[in-house]
Amino acid sequence: MNRPHNFSAGPCILPLEVFEKASQAVIDFDGSGLSILEISHRSTAFVEVMEKARSLALEHLNLQAKGYKALFMQGGASMQFLMTAYNLLEKKAGYLDTGTWSANAIKEAERFGEVKVLASSKESNYNFIPKNYSIPNGLDYLHCTSNNTIYGTQMKAFPNTGETPLICDMSSDIFSREIDYSQFDLIYAGAQKNMGPAGATLVVVKEDILGKVSRKIPSMMDYELFIKKESMFNTPPVFSVYVSMLTLEWLSRHGGVSAIEKKNRAKSELIYSEIDRNSLFEGFTAKDDRSMMNATFTLKNERLTPLFDKLWQSANLNGLNGHRSVGGYRASMYNALSIESVEVLVDVMKHFEKTI
Amino acid sequence: MNRPHNFSAGPCILPLEVFEKASQAVIDFDGSGLSILEISHRSTAFVEVMEKARSLALEHLNLQAKGYKALFMQGGASMQFLMTAYNLLEKKAGYLDTGTWSANAIKEAERFGEVKVLASSKESNYNFIPKNYSIPNGLDYLHCTSNNTIYGTQMKAFPNTGETPLICDMSSDIFSREIDYSQFDLIYAGAQKNMGPAGATLVVVKEDILGKVSRKIPSMMDYELFIKKESMFNTPPVFSVYVSMLTLEWLSRHGGVSAIEKKNRAKSELIYSEIDRNSLFEGFTAKDDRSMMNATFTLKNERLTPLFDKLWQSANLNGLNGHRSVGGYRASMYNALSIESVEVLVDVMKHFEKTI
Repeated sequence: MNRPHNFSAGPCILPLEVFEKASQAVIDFDGSGLSILEISHRSTAFVEVMEKARSLALEHLNLQAKGYKALFMQGGASMQFLMTAYNLLEKKAGYLDTGTWSANAIKEAERFGEVKVLASSKESNYNFIPKNYSIPNGLDYLHCTSNNTIYGTQMKAFPNTGETPLICDMSSDIFSREIDYSQFDLIYAGAQKNMGPAGATLVVVKEDILGKVSRKIPSMMDYELFIKKESMFNTPPVFSVYVSMLTLEWLSRHGGVSAIEKKNRAKSELIYSEIDRNSLFEGFTAKDDRSMMNATFTLKNERLTPLFDKLWQSANLNGLNGHRSVGGYRASMYNALSIESVEVLVDVMKHFEKTI
Repeated sequence: MNRPHNFSAGPCILPLEVFEKASQAVIDFDGSGLSILEISHRSTAFVEVMEKARSLALEHLNLQAKGYKALFMQGGASMQFLMTAYNLLEKKAGYLDTGTWSANAIKEAERFGEVKVLASSKESNYNFIPKNYSIPNGLDYLHCTSNNTIYGTQMKAFPNTGETPLICDMSSDIFSREIDYSQFDLIYAGAQKNMGPAGATLVVVKEDILGKVSRKIPSMMDYELFIKKESMFNTPPVFSVYVSMLTLEWLSRHGGVSAIEKKNRAKSELIYSEIDRNSLFEGFTAKDDRSMMNATFTLKNERLTPLFDKLWQSANLNGLNGHRSVGGYRASMYNALSIESVEVLVDVMKHFEKTI
């Protein structure tokens, strides 16, 4: 089968060998004769899956034995906008406003306390990452978004917050690059980019920041309860956790985050070189802030849109349309996307320039 | 392959043809060359899945065009314990305490307002459904649990609440029997019994009961927002919704709820007859309140436990252990379980009586 080159922004491409194992497990999980969809989440087999997924997540972030716990929850990053505030916002928190998802996180947090927006690039349609801002004293935490899927910007460095906990929404670039993950006190990520299918959300939290707010926290919002219950307070999203485990195992077999970062760097250099070289296109974001995951670009002459669309669609490319907030195109190049797919896209762009 | 007879309480057996289609879609969804796990939730193909699942849910409950909306959310029934209160509890609500899950729902609701427990069978380890209780005036709603998975009790009739909205947790018996679903104003159900895999939660709500509380509702808790966004406020649990759609389609092909109720009735009559007949066993619950979904029973002589366990395990039965709160055995007989599986269990029980 000739699989499309899948540039979808998320849910997105996962490794083919993960699809194959997951497909098999839907019929017969590990030779049990039962589907992964029909086994008890309290069964030994699934508890092992959950524990493997949790420990692999910490291992890939190099956060084992440093006071962090990994949890698989539900509801995506949007639920974490709410939960982080529920668990951690007592009086005042600082937020960096670098895109739609940051703005949504701010909106949810405002129900729980004072929110200081320390910097924003909203005025320029979020096409850069603000860098010069001061961090006031007395914040309960500082919240940032490492990669802005819609706009194609990515934080290359993170604020030094000292004693103030640093929270990061890493939904679209977790496990894609080597950074010091221990600079964060809480990381969360919807699974559906580099980790697995939609329906699971990874939360990695340093335990000692919890238990400090005065409000009562509902059970399903309570990180401490989920830690106590080893991520099984209630029925977890079994299949999404299982596929996340498979994807994290795939990452281990392929050299981990350091190896995947090299590949991601090569893919992004390839596409950005072409965007800059090709006379028909221009990049959307500030060059210093370009995302390794999502390359956003537009046609200088919008009237060429139908022609270019026809061309890339006929080349078996999928998911290249830009988000409506930006327009143009977005090539999402998550961990599982091969460099060959990016080469095909670049060839299409070159061919378009020559023939137009 | 000789598939085990799967009596798991949930996640639980789904139709084999659903497993087969789902397995195929993990490799190639509808001939697209893409996995169901890697397509955008905004793609036409997935929007159609979501709409089909939503409309089939209403159709099977006979609630089309009656002011109800069907939503697929995340977090299971436990999240609904919280959300129902967030959206509907202004001052005072009534709850029926018929099991662990009812009790958990009560606990979450108490954070939001006054909770009147109208009746409880807790004192007798929830082995019956309380029936004689009065419903005070001025309740924001009355909450009940139609089937108590752990204890094996099931409500055969529901209170007439007049103008007071009636909310029902139907996680473990939705789509299993014909009742007048329009007597409820809000029904919710974790998918992982009769509808699909863990990770999706169905909410069916009559729109006119919403928008009446004074508190501000966070986005991820807000039924009205999810209705407005056609169940796609954020990335939904794509695969779980897809498999739910497949299961609801399977139900349509097999005669719908009325046909499945006949089968469920036959299965439950078969097992309860044997429990009553067999000198070694006794049922756990009051006979009038016996669940068609989960039959709970114990050995009169507990010392026979290892022998009986060995016997049923060697007969390729799975998931028959009772919940720790009840002990003994629990045969969960959800829609997809065949009567042949129940026959095998009954044969094992008969054989045990003869040979012991």
